[in-house]
Amino acid sequence: MQGAVLHGPRDVRFEERAEPTIAEPTDAIISLSATCICGSDLWPYRGANPVTAPVPMGHEYCGVVEEVGADVRSIRRGQFVIGSFFASDNTCPHCQAGFQTSCQHREPVIGAQAPRLRVPLADGTLVPTHEVPDPDAVPSMLALSDVMGTGWFAAEAADVKPGATVLVVGDGAVGLLAVLSAKQMGAARIIAMSRHETRQKLAREFGATDVVTERGDEGVERVKELTRGVGADSTLECVGTPESMLQAIRSTRPGGSVGYVGVPHGVSLDGADLFFRHVRLLGGPAPVRRYLPTLIDLALNGKINPGKVFDLTLPLASVAEGYRAMDERRAIKTLLRP
Amino acid sequence: MQGAVLHGPRDVRFEERAEPTIAEPTDAIISLSATCICGSDLWPYRGANPVTAPVPMGHEYCGVVEEVGADVRSIRRGQFVIGSFFASDNTCPHCQAGFQTSCQHREPVIGAQAPRLRVPLADGTLVPTHEVPDPDAVPSMLALSDVMGTGWFAAEAADVKPGATVLVVGDGAVGLLAVLSAKQMGAARIIAMSRHETRQKLAREFGATDVVTERGDEGVERVKELTRGVGADSTLECVGTPESMLQAIRSTRPGGSVGYVGVPHGVSLDGADLFFRHVRLLGGPAPVRRYLPTLIDLALNGKINPGKVFDLTLPLASVAEGYRAMDERRAIKTLLRP
Repeated sequence: MQGAVLHGPRDVRFEERAEPTIAEPTDAIISLSATCICGSDLWPYRGANPVTAPVPMGHEYCGVVEEVGADVRSIRRGQFVIGSFFASDNTCPHCQAGFQTSCQHREPVIGAQAPRLRVPLADGTLVPTHEVPDPDAVPSMLALSDVMGTGWFAAEAADVKPGATVLVVGDGAVGLLAVLSAKQMGAARIIAMSRHETRQKLAREFGATDVVTERGDEGVERVKELTRGVGADSTLECVGTPESMLQAIRSTRPGGSVGYVGVPHGVSLDGADLFFRHVRLLGGPAPVRRYLPTLIDLALNGKINPGKVFDLTLPLASVAEGYRAMDERRAIKTLLRP
Repeated sequence: MQGAVLHGPRDVRFEERAEPTIAEPTDAIISLSATCICGSDLWPYRGANPVTAPVPMGHEYCGVVEEVGADVRSIRRGQFVIGSFFASDNTCPHCQAGFQTSCQHREPVIGAQAPRLRVPLADGTLVPTHEVPDPDAVPSMLALSDVMGTGWFAAEAADVKPGATVLVVGDGAVGLLAVLSAKQMGAARIIAMSRHETRQKLAREFGATDVVTERGDEGVERVKELTRGVGADSTLECVGTPESMLQAIRSTRPGGSVGYVGVPHGVSLDGADLFFRHVRLLGGPAPVRRYLPTLIDLALNGKINPGKVFDLTLPLASVAEGYRAMDERRAIKTLLRP
């Protein structure tokens, strides 16, 4: 089969890769209905993470089970399934506590930008739908594999409560779905930080009540102005840079919470500064597996439509163009059709 | 009057100071029943914070109101009162949210190691008892002014739940009262990190079920062993050094919480490390004012006896010896009688 492989900065190729096979008796092989490019794929694409050897790309997926290993019990051939970017056994103490992305036996899912994919720990990782969804629903199902669950975790980690004032830092797909998540959780006011018109529009459609275009100290000032000098109750950090993290912490009220889901790059936090700000922090790779049953229901019942973040659809063979469009911010998120 | 003044590292003097007076109409003047030396006083005493000019010391206090300013409404002459180390109006949005130590009008209380003390924002800051307590109860009342409330905040910030496994890093007065707080909140297992026999004994008396003497990687390993490889649900960090903070974060399970109340000195947190550990953080100067009514009740009803942390009592004139005893770890905490 052919799939996406990153060879170096801005060098992603659609090339021959080995067919996935059952390597462990707990594996499943999936035929992908759709896959996509993640904001976090742009870190190595832009050279922020070194690429020492060609690496198969992609970790977001949904599709139909083709084959399962001998020890797989709950997942069957023919089911439509969605899973997280980390495989988890869903039985260890960390999984039981709802932090499946810290599973004691977790394994990254790698190489999803391809027609077929091996998913380890299939019983713990994959969640089947009752029936194979309509093609129209596939983009939203795909979004649940990472970005929607990640936005949801940001909101939950930031302790969003009904009636709250919420700030969202970052207008990528995760930031936009963090807005949607905060709205679902009952936030009364949602301030989105964005300078990009298309994204502002989608943020408003998802529930943003205010848009702040300023950044840095001016951005903090603007949020303070909008909140009568108090700051946000909950801030959802969806970027991962030192600037965005400071923006988030400084815009939050004492006693408020920051949920951070942008993978930190070069972020270092000063203990004394954090101490005197009285801000609660929780972040990490989103435990998407925990949210999948809830989010599948919300999406299939039409309560949320996270698939809207895909504003570019390309055949998988054009994956390189998909990366370019996201790198240049021409596209929010690229869906790829195998 | 005479009070304690720090002139430089390890140079604290009992010397003439100006009598406190009503400077603002919201002030009160208190005649102190007792005062004490805080672990945080040792930072400047040891030279960790530079001392550029002589500074009156002390911020823990309880006593009888002598005089109030013209705008003071709820506090009256003759009342026995306890207050926090930060004065607060108790009406601003941050106070209303329960974070009085981030009050929009907060002022530090300074110079409590003296017979008399000016307390700003008296109505918001001071909590009176129903009657003047017995002399026996004074040490516990004094402990509520800082260390007990700080231990309580550590436990609350670390989200201690009934049945939880709790780790306490630090065996100073705050650490010991953090053990007591976790016990009150229903922790099933409380692991205290301590190498000091007297402190281990008091920790066990306050509710510790296990004592760990190892530190660093070995300390983390020992905690993991005691928790079947999982880590603590809640960790209460009561020191403030880079080592103690790392000890706390690394000993906590994914999805668990660290409450940190040791004033951070030289602490820097790596964003990516924190991200992948999935640990929730909340710290800061404890909002003691919020807890005072509850803690006064618990102490006067004999449910808690936080005054036990005072294992050395000296006349105020011997304040220098009180500092030496704590610096050399001969005393856990020194109570001073004016």
